[in-house]
Amino acid sequence: MVTSRDVAQLAGVSQMTVSRVLQGSSRVAPQTREKVLAAMQQAGYRPHAAARTLRTRRTSTVGVVVADITNPFYPQLLEAVGRALEEAGLRMVLWNAPDPSADGALRALHENTVDGLIFTTATKASAELAEVAGRGDPVVLLHRGLDELDCDQVTTDNLAGGRAVADYLVRCGCSRIGFLRGPELPSTARDRERGFRDRLAELGRPLAPELTADGGFDHDRARAAVRDLLAAAKPPTAVFCANDLTALGAVDGAVAAGRRVPEDVWVVGYDDIAMTAWDSYDITTVRQPIAEMARAAVRLLLERIEDRGLPPRNQRFPSELVVRGSTAHTPES
Amino acid sequence: MVTSRDVAQLAGVSQMTVSRVLQGSSRVAPQTREKVLAAMQQAGYRPHAAARTLRTRRTSTVGVVVADITNPFYPQLLEAVGRALEEAGLRMVLWNAPDPSADGALRALHENTVDGLIFTTATKASAELAEVAGRGDPVVLLHRGLDELDCDQVTTDNLAGGRAVADYLVRCGCSRIGFLRGPELPSTARDRERGFRDRLAELGRPLAPELTADGGFDHDRARAAVRDLLAAAKPPTAVFCANDLTALGAVDGAVAAGRRVPEDVWVVGYDDIAMTAWDSYDITTVRQPIAEMARAAVRLLLERIEDRGLPPRNQRFPSELVVRGSTAHTPES
Repeated sequence: MVTSRDVAQLAGVSQMTVSRVLQGSSRVAPQTREKVLAAMQQAGYRPHAAARTLRTRRTSTVGVVVADITNPFYPQLLEAVGRALEEAGLRMVLWNAPDPSADGALRALHENTVDGLIFTTATKASAELAEVAGRGDPVVLLHRGLDELDCDQVTTDNLAGGRAVADYLVRCGCSRIGFLRGPELPSTARDRERGFRDRLAELGRPLAPELTADGGFDHDRARAAVRDLLAAAKPPTAVFCANDLTALGAVDGAVAAGRRVPEDVWVVGYDDIAMTAWDSYDITTVRQPIAEMARAAVRLLLERIEDRGLPPRNQRFPSELVVRGSTAHTPES
Repeated sequence: MVTSRDVAQLAGVSQMTVSRVLQGSSRVAPQTREKVLAAMQQAGYRPHAAARTLRTRRTSTVGVVVADITNPFYPQLLEAVGRALEEAGLRMVLWNAPDPSADGALRALHENTVDGLIFTTATKASAELAEVAGRGDPVVLLHRGLDELDCDQVTTDNLAGGRAVADYLVRCGCSRIGFLRGPELPSTARDRERGFRDRLAELGRPLAPELTADGGFDHDRARAAVRDLLAAAKPPTAVFCANDLTALGAVDGAVAAGRRVPEDVWVVGYDDIAMTAWDSYDITTVRQPIAEMARAAVRLLLERIEDRGLPPRNQRFPSELVVRGSTAHTPES
């Protein structure tokens, strides 16, 4: 490897002078600076990571874009992605930003400050993202997918998960089934709702509009929404929540309204974050295999970094209902 | 701004050729490549972020090192740091890694891929970190401090926080006061314990060894530890936990043991993470002013990036006891 000593010899200056040029010091005469820069170029010397990147076009860094790290699902997912990247000798750069700021991540990919990107919270294919994906650039969607985008995607079968909850609640004889929906755009919220709604309709028990409300993928909003639902003359006896954070809010809303879970109302979430298993919540939910999904996303990304000509791959993991205390009193038990 | 078109004109080649040189394509003759590189240098053209960094030695990126994002305290802190950085026009690079891997972050600083570093979970001053800090390089410790290090630090007065909890529990007439300690190394765990212990001793109520256990800053370990404490012949009637995650585990341990909080046992945490205020937990805790601390850390870092000659600054925020339902039944009430 070429060292600064080699550059100094070639330029006929001291190593200190080379170092000063590297630091952009004003104590080097312009003529000397030119001489040193020419020697660097001649010798092929590159002092820093930034220059190394220019040469190898690899940063060993992968960017991960996430919209809301205060939803405990994402720290769990990020830790799993970080571990999978670490096993591959890569480090993680995190953008905690809503969708519009994904521009920053795309710019980083464009400028080669990251080798690839994993989007965990994409809700729409911006023109920039579509262009990048269309070129076969190393971009993977994880957790939330985008049907309109031809790129590698790793998701859970949220449609089947929503259907499984409908089957479970109807089978258990729940009389008034409610629903706390998520935001409009994420594929997760949309597919869970569609699966739940469609299956309920198929079973002859269509979802009643007065038993649904907006949970917003937000604890406090879900808490308020459930209090409203429970204050009605005919409140729901079971509430399916579009994610676990919403389910935590729903349980807290029931507590705040003086109702018991599951005696007065059942609560079902989605994701199986660690907290749903904690004693104070003990929430029935649909499990996403977080660690496996993270490993799959990293594997697809590494393959695409090596070969941009690969066809888009779509890896969909099965979902699994996990029954806990928030619905434990089934007719069968 | 100089564009690749300018470079092409100057070198007398097509823009496509300039683009190929930039991409390191082998389809460019060595002579042509040299001509293009010379034109780039003459025109002052730099195509990518990496090259821009070499010129300006600024990346507009700050590295943040954190040990455990699955402790909900850290996502809250990171979101606050991210927001403060964004306001300053900077982006955040995250290392989610235990202390040893901070080497990666220090290397990034050394190689100028970040402008500065914020450590949120430092537990010891490695030789590398001490050297970096001693040079006045842009490094700020946030949340956890290191007495032996002469660098900018932003912390809460954990000693006073621990003392305040001792005062509160003794004033409320708690008979058997227990403690779930944290890991040995973090300054937060150490100072909270020291303040709590010293103040209890001053009040003539020294902490009983049989009423203390290791909570490990971990939900499941705290849960198991509290179950053990509550199974004793003379169980604690109040348990102070070295952080909120431990307090969540303590409440769940009490629930699992069939005890009621606060009727059978009081629980006090530390940090005031959002979840402590949620209805299912409703935990008395000591508040850290997370947003203010994050802003202070970013401000100190920006000042140091501008002037490495500044003396080390130590900003310590006051702590504040927040009484909630996990201890609500005070003798005064």
